[in-house]
Amino acid sequence: MSLLVVGTMAYDSVKTPFGERHLALGGSATYFSMSASFFTKVMLVAVIGDDFAKDHLELLGARGIDMNGVSRLPGCTFHWQGEYGYDLNEAKTLATHLNVLEKFDPNLPESYRGAEYVFLANIDPRLQRKVLDQVKRPRLVACDTMNFWIHSALPELKKTLEMVDILFINEGEARMLANTPNMVKAAREIRSMGPRTLVIKQGEYGALLFHEGEIVSAPAFTLEEVFDPTGAGDTFAGGFMGHVARMGEKELTPALLRQAIVVGSAMASFTVEKFSIDRLKDLERREIAERFRHFKRLTHFEDLTAEA
Amino acid sequence: MSLLVVGTMAYDSVKTPFGERHLALGGSATYFSMSASFFTKVMLVAVIGDDFAKDHLELLGARGIDMNGVSRLPGCTFHWQGEYGYDLNEAKTLATHLNVLEKFDPNLPESYRGAEYVFLANIDPRLQRKVLDQVKRPRLVACDTMNFWIHSALPELKKTLEMVDILFINEGEARMLANTPNMVKAAREIRSMGPRTLVIKQGEYGALLFHEGEIVSAPAFTLEEVFDPTGAGDTFAGGFMGHVARMGEKELTPALLRQAIVVGSAMASFTVEKFSIDRLKDLERREIAERFRHFKRLTHFEDLTAEA
Repeated sequence: MSLLVVGTMAYDSVKTPFGERHLALGGSATYFSMSASFFTKVMLVAVIGDDFAKDHLELLGARGIDMNGVSRLPGCTFHWQGEYGYDLNEAKTLATHLNVLEKFDPNLPESYRGAEYVFLANIDPRLQRKVLDQVKRPRLVACDTMNFWIHSALPELKKTLEMVDILFINEGEARMLANTPNMVKAAREIRSMGPRTLVIKQGEYGALLFHEGEIVSAPAFTLEEVFDPTGAGDTFAGGFMGHVARMGEKELTPALLRQAIVVGSAMASFTVEKFSIDRLKDLERREIAERFRHFKRLTHFEDLTAEA
Repeated sequence: MSLLVVGTMAYDSVKTPFGERHLALGGSATYFSMSASFFTKVMLVAVIGDDFAKDHLELLGARGIDMNGVSRLPGCTFHWQGEYGYDLNEAKTLATHLNVLEKFDPNLPESYRGAEYVFLANIDPRLQRKVLDQVKRPRLVACDTMNFWIHSALPELKKTLEMVDILFINEGEARMLANTPNMVKAAREIRSMGPRTLVIKQGEYGALLFHEGEIVSAPAFTLEEVFDPTGAGDTFAGGFMGHVARMGEKELTPALLRQAIVVGSAMASFTVEKFSIDRLKDLERREIAERFRHFKRLTHFEDLTAEA
């Protein structure tokens, strides 16, 4: 089933303890699309500047991503500059140049309006709603957000949250949004704002999923070389939503969501192995299935016998 | 099979965002013994002062814990004073009064020397070895340690590590001991110091286990009310080692270790629900089995079909 994503396409300048990369392809919609493209047909909505390289568009095109919704404006592409410390846990933003993103006014091509699955990556909640308003009858709407909007546009964010089925959010931002450190309480509070399903991203510790009375915990894959965590969260969401769209089930069953969170974690574990989308662009379906099995091995344990 | 533990018995004064408790029963050996006593016969080695309450000894006695190895010295019992912030993640130590612990010189009763399983809780690595030297032919030796010994007694700690099969250690301390932020690398480095099996405690995120080529990840139980995290790590180790001793298998198989890490997590999830050992002292086997099943539910997911 078709999966529409709106978000950023960017050039990132990133420094990690293992190296640095200037003007690498990045952005939430880029990572999401690349990841989801392994599972389903992706329709991309974003804005780029006239500096955006043809090679990069071809790279996305090669993965079958529909780019009719990508508009090009005069000026430079959104540019993020960040740095990670020793433990790679949190990015320190050194500079954010919005550039053409300031004039982003998403208008969906007619062919996008029948999208069945929608992911609103982290952008202004007003723009998230503007996109949603143009989709006719989506089966499932998910979104992501960040501290910037929680601080500066909470009423707008809340209006968006009322319209979504699944929220993806970082642990720290969940605490901020719900105003409690406890994840079970935070989940209840956030789910009362709209999303029936909540996915809390915990970085190197994995993710928690809350849905009806269910809680699911998925670890992050234990990697010997985490090279650059940029894009891990959007790659995770891309794998999650891609799997859900691929399966195309009428209902979000617990079994489906349990698989989706592991598919998301598997995809994220590839992204962090290299800079930018370098690992995703050469990835094969065979490797995804293999990593999924590794996750099984990482978390499996036998029931206790009556004796034990 | 019998499980010997050496460690501290203490009075803790603890403040959390939810309340405070003055001179509550605590200490690594106390939490460990209480937890392990649900699974196997525990022999306790520790020192207490003449202020140590009869009620508290009876409480441990009621769980069948052998206290022939507990010696009473003139003076006050070890006293720790700490405080937890908003997110309960890390204790801030306000005061440590060693008191009788300064004169701790463990001498095992004859009846303890045939112990099959041994846990050396976090104390001076010299004392850990002194205890070990008195045990005849242990099948399995585990230990815990902390930043204080890594900083101040590394050569002594390394001598102890050469003699143990399993090390339990906090994530931050593993990074410190191995001098790398990456857990896979840290595990390799630490296992080269002696322990064949390494359990890295990640607090509210659960635990990782490294054994031969295996990695296992177990989440912490998601609780709505985490009241006081004091003792969680030792309770975890108590459940882990208690289960291993109960099963009494000749070899540490991956299947056994996978169960043990979940039993440990289940036990720790009880301890944090109340102050001190308040939750453990009323706990029933039935509740442990039920929580184990909840862990299964928290982490389970189905294999992908060929289609997916």
